[in-house]
Amino acid sequence: MVSKDVKADDVVATLGDVCAARGLDALTARLAALQTLLAGDLAEVEAALAVVAKNGGTPAHESARHLLELGGKRLRPICVALASHVGSGFTPAALTFAVAVEMIHNATLLHDDVVDLGDRRRGADTARVVYGNAASIFGGDWLLAEALCRVQAAGVEGVLDRMLVVVREMVTAETLQLAARGRVRTSTSEYFKIVQGKTASLFQWAMFAGGRAGGVGTRECEALESYGGMLGLAFQIVDDVLDFAGDPEATGKDLLTDLREGKMTYPLLLAVERDPGLADELEANCRGDEVSVTPEIARRIGRVMSEGGVVQDCLALATRMCRDAAQSLEILPASQARSALQDVALATPLRRK
Amino acid sequence: MVSKDVKADDVVATLGDVCAARGLDALTARLAALQTLLAGDLAEVEAALAVVAKNGGTPAHESARHLLELGGKRLRPICVALASHVGSGFTPAALTFAVAVEMIHNATLLHDDVVDLGDRRRGADTARVVYGNAASIFGGDWLLAEALCRVQAAGVEGVLDRMLVVVREMVTAETLQLAARGRVRTSTSEYFKIVQGKTASLFQWAMFAGGRAGGVGTRECEALESYGGMLGLAFQIVDDVLDFAGDPEATGKDLLTDLREGKMTYPLLLAVERDPGLADELEANCRGDEVSVTPEIARRIGRVMSEGGVVQDCLALATRMCRDAAQSLEILPASQARSALQDVALATPLRRK
Repeated sequence: MVSKDVKADDVVATLGDVCAARGLDALTARLAALQTLLAGDLAEVEAALAVVAKNGGTPAHESARHLLELGGKRLRPICVALASHVGSGFTPAALTFAVAVEMIHNATLLHDDVVDLGDRRRGADTARVVYGNAASIFGGDWLLAEALCRVQAAGVEGVLDRMLVVVREMVTAETLQLAARGRVRTSTSEYFKIVQGKTASLFQWAMFAGGRAGGVGTRECEALESYGGMLGLAFQIVDDVLDFAGDPEATGKDLLTDLREGKMTYPLLLAVERDPGLADELEANCRGDEVSVTPEIARRIGRVMSEGGVVQDCLALATRMCRDAAQSLEILPASQARSALQDVALATPLRRK
Repeated sequence: MVSKDVKADDVVATLGDVCAARGLDALTARLAALQTLLAGDLAEVEAALAVVAKNGGTPAHESARHLLELGGKRLRPICVALASHVGSGFTPAALTFAVAVEMIHNATLLHDDVVDLGDRRRGADTARVVYGNAASIFGGDWLLAEALCRVQAAGVEGVLDRMLVVVREMVTAETLQLAARGRVRTSTSEYFKIVQGKTASLFQWAMFAGGRAGGVGTRECEALESYGGMLGLAFQIVDDVLDFAGDPEATGKDLLTDLREGKMTYPLLLAVERDPGLADELEANCRGDEVSVTPEIARRIGRVMSEGGVVQDCLALATRMCRDAAQSLEILPASQARSALQDVALATPLRRK
């Protein structure tokens, strides 16, 4: 239990460290306050996640447990918790939704790792490496089914309906992403369509469900959802940037993984736009839907990412989105939770893992 | 369209043919009447299934389309349709549920084939052979998500809630079945637990949802559900028998597939009980969780299946269950639909594909 609490604290602490390292003292201090605000809630979430798949006793449940125990940023539960504090606070329904949103997220990761034949995640072997593909497929199915039952049992009007639509949106985005693999000449609108479905929609749901669980009114819930959508897009853009410019020690995964898997992310699309010959070189190195990354390709991409200003421009876009996200909460009455959500948004483009 | 209609008719016609071949003239005549009763409904189901995954345009959607187009017995939609006729008939909600139940069933098959590395189904290459494992995983996810959204949109009270619980039951059974693979010395209670979750629960839901869509009352819906549960168990036992005693031409899959995949079905459990040395021989031929079926093992199993009376006893049990299923409908007022359901139950242990 104690170690779980520490892990939950770490999440917010990491955002704080990053800010501190960059001299953003005021933001650091505010994120420390956020940590105090959420410590109890996140400890409850961790305690609940720790037992989710513990008693299943099958390799599929072990897969789910393995992934859940590796932690992760828990940003979606943080969204649920903060949204609930915009209303009456972290109710039992909010706890249910915070746990469910992390279960759904992990369900998609289990299937993604089988689909991508991924070996490493969160600095450890993936569940499929430890327990096999079959266990990961059924582990993902089980996490999804269990999460839906929990959301249903919470009985908060409209929340399950929205969840089902979001799950369909997420899966549809995964089908599009799979179809687009290895297609070097794709469009930014295709990229944003995929990211909206794959990432932003679940952040939107987290904010909506948290708000509803805290008894927040319809108009305010719409603002929370809008925040969630923009935060989710920005979060994914930063994630995609970290594939090229991250520290594998911190992110827990190798560099250029997206590229090798033939996934054209926003930074890559900008890179191809600024170095037109790059598309030909990538296509020439496509094997099936994967890209064989030669040292020349890695160097060429590294150059356009830094000297061509791609990383800078991606982070600028993410920053703009996060400012819009923070701005969208201005219709809410001022509160500690509102400020905390705005701080989370402002810290998101600064994250390094 | 026309070919689809023919396919739907075929399903019921097949049950009729079997009965005719065995001299059960009265049952044959009644199943012909059933065919007339359902022809319109099943044509609507086929038309709807034909467009389910047509416009997705990704390999995942193609996987789903591939499997749905191969047909199958459509027994679950038949259950929905007949249950609806116990009430006011095949309403738009009943059509939605009939389509959704087949989508859910096919979603599980897509994942099963990836988990089992299955190459053939319904007499054709599996979707994973044609479109790959990744497309089949996301194809299954998509079918499930889409089916849940459709059930939700139908807005019939209690039907979505029950569906979610059933999906969790099905997935849990799959996790148990996977965990039990290659374990030769398992129990019949474990077998029935798996079959209840994997097969019977969805038949129960089909009957419940059809009844609710037709406005059938609570007590009558319970009888329909009870029928569905027993029919589902019997259906699965017959399926498992056909793995040993079926005609691959008719069933569309090779003999002894379950055995090779290390799945201890009811006939196998009886076989091991009646020929105790068989367990040792199976264990000696286990490679991981698969059984390498030597000609000696095949002969030995064939002997106990026929001379040891295993096939006969399994079919006797299925027949008893089907009689109980038919019996459970006696609380309903007499109607053409009730008789038809009873006939479907009586014909189930006679099916040969």
